Amino acid sequence: MHIISRFYEDYELGSKRETLGRTITETDFVVHAGHTGDYFPHHMDAEWCKTQPFKQRIAHGTLTFAVGIGMTATEINPEAFSKGYDRLRFVKPVYIGDTISVVVTISEKKESNKPALGHITEHVEIFNQRGELVLVCDHILLAKKKDK
Amino acid sequence: MHIISRFYEDYELGSKRETLGRTITETDFVVHAGHTGDYFPHHMDAEWCKTQPFKQRIAHGTLTFAVGIGMTATEINPEAFSKGYDRLRFVKPVYIGDTISVVVTISEKKESNKPALGHITEHVEIFNQRGELVLVCDHILLAKKKDK
Amino acid sequence: MHIISRFYEDYELGSKRETLGRTITETDFVVHAGHTGDYFPHHMDAEWCKTQPFKQRIAHGTLTFAVGIGMTATEINPEAFSKGYDRLRFVKPVYIGDTISVVVTISEKKESNKPALGHITEHVEIFNQRGELVLVCDHILLAKKKDK
Amino acid sequence: MHIISRFYEDYELGSKRETLGRTITETDFVVHAGHTGDYFPHHMDAEWCKTQPFKQRIAHGTLTFAVGIGMTATEINPEAFSKGYDRLRFVKPVYIGDTISVVVTISEKKESNKPALGHITEHVEIFNQRGELVLVCDHILLAKKKDK
Amino acid sequence: MHIISRFYEDYELGSKRETLGRTITETDFVVHAGHTGDYFPHHMDAEWCKTQPFKQRIAHGTLTFAVGIGMTATEINPEAFSKGYDRLRFVKPVYIGDTISVVVTISEKKESNKPALGHITEHVEIFNQRGELVLVCDHILLAKKKDK
Amino acid sequence: MHIISRFYEDYELGSKRETLGRTITETDFVVHAGHTGDYFPHHMDAEWCKTQPFKQRIAHGTLTFAVGIGMTATEINPEAFSKGYDRLRFVKPVYIGDTISVVVTISEKKESNKPALGHITEHVEIFNQRGELVLVCDHILLAKKKDK
Repeated sequence: MHIISRFYEDYELGSKRETLGRTITETDFVVHAGHTGDYFPHHMDAEWCKTQPFKQRIAHGTLTFAVGIGMTATEINPEAFSKGYDRLRFVKPVYIGDTISVVVTISEKKESNKPALGHITEHVEIFNQRGELVLVCDHILLAKKKDK
Repeated sequence: MHIISRFYEDYELGSKRETLGRTITETDFVVHAGHTGDYFPHHMDAEWCKTQPFKQRIAHGTLTFAVGIGMTATEINPEAFSKGYDRLRFVKPVYIGDTISVVVTISEKKESNKPALGHITEHVEIFNQRGELVLVCDHILLAKKKDK
Repeated sequence: MHIISRFYEDYELGSKRETLGRTITETDFVVHAGHTGDYFPHHMDAEWCKTQPFKQRIAHGTLTFAVGIGMTATEINPEAFSKGYDRLRFVKPVYIGDTISVVVTISEKKESNKPALGHITEHVEIFNQRGELVLVCDHILLAKKKDK
Repeated sequence: MHIISRFYEDYELGSKRETLGRTITETDFVVHAGHTGDYFPHHMDAEWCKTQPFKQRIAHGTLTFAVGIGMTATEINPEAFSKGYDRLRFVKPVYIGDTISVVVTISEKKESNKPALGHITEHVEIFNQRGELVLVCDHILLAKKKDK
Repeated sequence: MHIISRFYEDYELGSKRETLGRTITETDFVVHAGHTGDYFPHHMDAEWCKTQPFKQRIAHGTLTFAVGIGMTATEINPEAFSKGYDRLRFVKPVYIGDTISVVVTISEKKESNKPALGHITEHVEIFNQRGELVLVCDHILLAKKKDK
Repeated sequence: MHIISRFYEDYELGSKRETLGRTITETDFVVHAGHTGDYFPHHMDAEWCKTQPFKQRIAHGTLTFAVGIGMTATEINPEAFSKGYDRLRFVKPVYIGDTISVVVTISEKKESNKPALGHITEHVEIFNQRGELVLVCDHILLAKKKDK
């Protein structure tokens, strides 16, 4: 984790960064349930899950999202701030023992309605250990322009 | 937490449900950092925050989102599943000691490209104890239609 | 979790409510030890447990009790408050991977020494995934009477 | 934590042991809610609590019980096992920042229906930093008799 | 955990104390990563570890150290305080499921540069369930002398 | 967190790296006690601490060490591995609310008894928000030499 100044002009369309992997454990399921209060049986009841099409506990969507986004939190840019996320989709279930990694691509740059700021879109893809896409979203940043 | 069957037809446009409140604590900040690996100083370094415009530690966006969504997880509907979220926006910072509550409104119903399923949009608003909107997003569900 | 007013007269003798299931994980054992400070080898030392009649780690009695009671915490009744518990018994061990669910039965109603209040007994039974009773207790509530 | 053999005959009626103190923190409240799934506003919503007679968040009864019992877990007796608890009563609320300590008194010894075992009752009292009793219960043990 | 006064003169060279065992779980790995912020793939990425000589996740050195030292924290001596540690060595990896126990030996006593205090060295050895040494260090204490 | 190859020859004597800050919270104290099992009143009993010279709860030495070392875990070097630590000293107490940061200096390079490896010493200094040194230690690494 370190601080690097990146202005709107410094973001290069199409550039990518990729994280290392992290294995999603039963502990993460239990911690996430306890943190959020979501004890739905999909995540917490192994016996009930055996009776369902997915056969085993599946990660909360918010778990995969929050952990995946956390994995990309390595560089602090004081010239930009997070506005939110668009098109967040749960593509495939994440199971206990799956290992996820994240690819972030600068997918869009456009003017903002404030002339001193520009919109940056980071396209975020979370993959499991078989290379399957499990979650996708677009992170929307507002970045300062230089000399403004 | 209980199981209630709700088909596409059962969702009533404009109907609302509201959660009780939950105080966001310093513990939640520390747990969220540890859960996600995001130790950005915005959330974890009280001294550095004093030098910033917001003056104090602010909650991770993913914290407010995950906890707020967790607070709405009270009813299991076996006829629907979560597809994802749209237009997630961090409207105002959440500070240690703020108490949040959530209002969910059925804001849209539309046909899906699969005739047996319909799209439901739940508009999710998270408020602090002063009634200020802090986070907003649209939850996208796919719900089964009756008799299909 | 929601708020419903129930007065003494509203509790119906013999009525039952049942929770969904929750799988007790190794994480729950470790969290409970860390939360309570009870690191007895019965719960924490897999090697020592192999030399004991029960052969594997068993849940703290307070874990099964606290989690089981937590599973029943779905309805807030502002007209009643918890006085305590009677006849709490650890009937069978709970192992890592067991899935518990809880049945609560209104088993007794009687006058209190304060005329405005009545005693309610909730008989609490915690079962594992094989339907075996693992813990039993009586929850003692004091509930307001109507028009008093 | 250490292992000491104590048979039925070794328990002395009226003998006492006392623990050191432990401050109950906001973290303990959040951990307990997450561990048990009990997010009742009495424990988790500081704003709502301000509108209630107790004015501030109060500890879950199961928190005070589980932590207090954990504080007494210092001596492993291979000759006895825990049968359960009787007359558990929540006498006074425990607030964030209260420091609790526990006194355990051997309050009863009696024959069991199995001749090789005897009943021991440990009377457990949990006090706050002002010396006020906050929780009381009777721990029921079955202890082996010597030479049987 | 209890309080016992031990002065410099009371420490006997060569005397030993030994802890019970504790199984190091996947939960401990996840908790330690979250507590310290160290998410190195050696501890957190089961897939990457398969490609490494050690083949599976290994405990953080600071995990084995902190937990092992915690296991020895059973006796509070108001006459001594901890100065630090020397010659801390990670001798063998600790894997998920290993059970560790600790032997502490009084290995050195010597004068301090303050005449009222003496140096005590506790040699700390942490073993796994196969009796293999996994971590070793020397704990340096300063203890008061009697009648000074 | 990223992977960078650094051989023995690449470590430059006297070079420094510095972390951002992290505020040590009451939550960290409670998590560390629960993780390690060390519930000594110095860390956990605010009332008892008021009667002691330090007046308030102080961090476990192993907490400051493990968190401080974790804060330096930003760069994975596949050419080196950690052998251990020397001269770890607890210089000043860390209190709840203190913010620590870490400076790591390459303080020594020397031949190892294996010709393909060299010894690197990283001198680690942990400071609080007033710039006071609170913990110091020497991290001992073995690094591969180039072309060997």
